[in-house]
Amino acid sequence: MKTRITELFNIQYPIIQAGMIWCSGSKLAAAVSNAGGLGIIGAGSMKPDVLDLHLSKMNTLTDKPFAVNLPIFSAYAEEQVKCILKHQVKIVFTSAGNPKTYTALFKEHGVKVIHVIPSPKLAQKCEAVGVDGVVAEGFEAGGHNGQDEITTLSLIPQVVDAVSIPVIAAGGIADGRTMAATLALGAEAVQVGTRFAATIESSAHEEFKQAIVSAEAGDTRLLMKKLMPVRLKHNPFSAEVMAYESRGATKEELATLLGKGRAKRGIFEGDMDQGEIEIGQISGMITDIPHAGDVVKRMIEECKHVCKALYRFTD
Amino acid sequence: MKTRITELFNIQYPIIQAGMIWCSGSKLAAAVSNAGGLGIIGAGSMKPDVLDLHLSKMNTLTDKPFAVNLPIFSAYAEEQVKCILKHQVKIVFTSAGNPKTYTALFKEHGVKVIHVIPSPKLAQKCEAVGVDGVVAEGFEAGGHNGQDEITTLSLIPQVVDAVSIPVIAAGGIADGRTMAATLALGAEAVQVGTRFAATIESSAHEEFKQAIVSAEAGDTRLLMKKLMPVRLKHNPFSAEVMAYESRGATKEELATLLGKGRAKRGIFEGDMDQGEIEIGQISGMITDIPHAGDVVKRMIEECKHVCKALYRFTD
Repeated sequence: MKTRITELFNIQYPIIQAGMIWCSGSKLAAAVSNAGGLGIIGAGSMKPDVLDLHLSKMNTLTDKPFAVNLPIFSAYAEEQVKCILKHQVKIVFTSAGNPKTYTALFKEHGVKVIHVIPSPKLAQKCEAVGVDGVVAEGFEAGGHNGQDEITTLSLIPQVVDAVSIPVIAAGGIADGRTMAATLALGAEAVQVGTRFAATIESSAHEEFKQAIVSAEAGDTRLLMKKLMPVRLKHNPFSAEVMAYESRGATKEELATLLGKGRAKRGIFEGDMDQGEIEIGQISGMITDIPHAGDVVKRMIEECKHVCKALYRFTD
Repeated sequence: MKTRITELFNIQYPIIQAGMIWCSGSKLAAAVSNAGGLGIIGAGSMKPDVLDLHLSKMNTLTDKPFAVNLPIFSAYAEEQVKCILKHQVKIVFTSAGNPKTYTALFKEHGVKVIHVIPSPKLAQKCEAVGVDGVVAEGFEAGGHNGQDEITTLSLIPQVVDAVSIPVIAAGGIADGRTMAATLALGAEAVQVGTRFAATIESSAHEEFKQAIVSAEAGDTRLLMKKLMPVRLKHNPFSAEVMAYESRGATKEELATLLGKGRAKRGIFEGDMDQGEIEIGQISGMITDIPHAGDVVKRMIEECKHVCKALYRFTD
C-alpha cells in the first residue's frame, strides 16, 4: 500500500495513530509503529520532563519510525522543541498554532513536518511555509476542532485540490471502510484517533475506554465554540456547557465553567461526570478494546477487501 | 453499476437527484432520469395544484423512472398524497416526519417508499415500518438537517450496520470521488443536492446558482438549531441569525426573525441578502453550471476511474 506518505515516513501501511492527550505515550506509539503504521507521542499533555522520559524509552520499544505531536500554543512548546531535537526525532506533527513558528527550524535539523488543518485555505498556508504534508481533520473528529465545521467528506477533496503536498485524512476513520473512503477522496494516509484511544496500549483510564465502547451515533457534540471548539461525549459536564451555550453564555463564563484540568479528569482520571470525554462521532462504531497492533491489521485487511469489492463498479 | 437500489428503481446509475424546494420541478427531474439516474420532483415548495401540473408534464418529458419527495410535516401533505396516487407515481421519498404516516398506504398502492433519516436509530424505525430503503443524510448537507449532527462519513457505515434494507448516502456528494467514497462505506446509491441545484435545468434563480459557484469551503453554517436546523450560506440574514444565537435567542425570537418565505426569497427570487441560501458544504467544490445530464455523466466516469485506481491498494 504505497503512497507518498508511506514513502515519506518509510512505513509499511498508510495508518497514523493520532497524537492524543493522556492516551498516546510511548507504549501506544511503539505498538502502532511495530505493527507497520506510524505511532505518535502526544506531547500536548506532557510537561517537558515527561516527554523526555517517553522519548528516552522509544529506542528500546521500537526500531520503526515514529513521530511527536506538538501543539504550538502550549506554554511548554519551546522546551518541547528542544527535547524533540535532542532526541533526534525524525517526524513532527504540529497543530493548534501558526505552521510558520517552527517549520524552518525543524527542516534545518532534517525533521519532517506535518501540520494539522481544518480548511483548504490553511492547507495552502502550510504549503507556502514548506511543510511536507498536512493532516486535514474534519468536524466529526474527537477533541479540539476548527471553527469552519467542515466534515471529512467535504474537506479532503477540497484540500487535495488546493495543494500539491500529500494529504492525510482525519476525523471519522475507525475501520477499513472509512479508510478506503478517504483514500477514494485522494488522501494518502489516514490519521486515527478514537479507535486507538480504546486499545490496550492506550494510557487512558479504563472508564474512558468504556465510554468509547458504550457510545452510540449522535452521543457527541462540538461545544465551547466561543472558546476553542471541542467535541465531547454527552455527560453531566457537557450538559451544563450546552445549557450555558443555549442561554448565550460569554467566552469568559465558559472559561470559568471549564476551569483547568477537565480533559485530564475525563481521559486520564476516569471522571465520567465532570471530566471532558474527548471522543469522535465514529465512537458509535467501536465495540471493543483490542491491541493497537490488531487495529492496524484489521483496518488494512478490511480496506483491501473494500477496494477489491469496488472494482465491480468499473466496467 | 448494479446495486439493490438500481434494481429496486430499475435505473442505470446509482445517482439520485435530491428533491429540493424551488429547484427540482419536472424539468430537472426529467433531465436526471433521462441521463440514467433517478430524478425527484420536490413537492416541498409546491401547492397541490402545482405538483399536479408538474406530474402531468412528466409523461411527455421522460419514459424513465422518477420519484416525488414528500415532506410529511407539510400542511398540504394529505392532498399531495392524493395527487401522487392519482398520477400513479411509482417511487416516493418521504422526509421530515414519522415514516409510519404514509408508508402502509403507499405500499398498498404498489408505491416504493424511501425515507430520509439522520441517525441509525431512525433507520431502524423505518425498517420496522416497512420502507424499501433509507436515505442517510449527513451534517454537511444543505438545507434542513438532523439534530444529532452526524456527518456522512460517520453516519453511512453505522446505518449500514444497523439495518438490512439498502442505504442511499446524502450530504457532501458532488463528484465521482465523493460518490466512490460513500460506495466504499456501503451505500448502494448517492443522493445529490447542491450539485444539481447549480445546473441549467434547476428552476432556482440565477443568483442562487451563482452563490453555489462562488462559495468556498467553510462558507456555510448549520443554524436555527432551536427551531429546525438548516444549513445556510453566509449572508446578511445568516449573520443576523448567528448574532441572535450567540446571545441565546429563544425559539420564539428565532421564529419571528425567520418569518415566512425566506427560502423562496433566497432560492427562487434570488434575494442574496435577506433570503435563505440553502446549500451544502460541498458547494466549495462546485465551479460551473452544466446540464444536469452532464453531471450524471461526469460523476459516473470519475467514480469508475476512482474505483479502478483503488485497486492498487489490494495486493
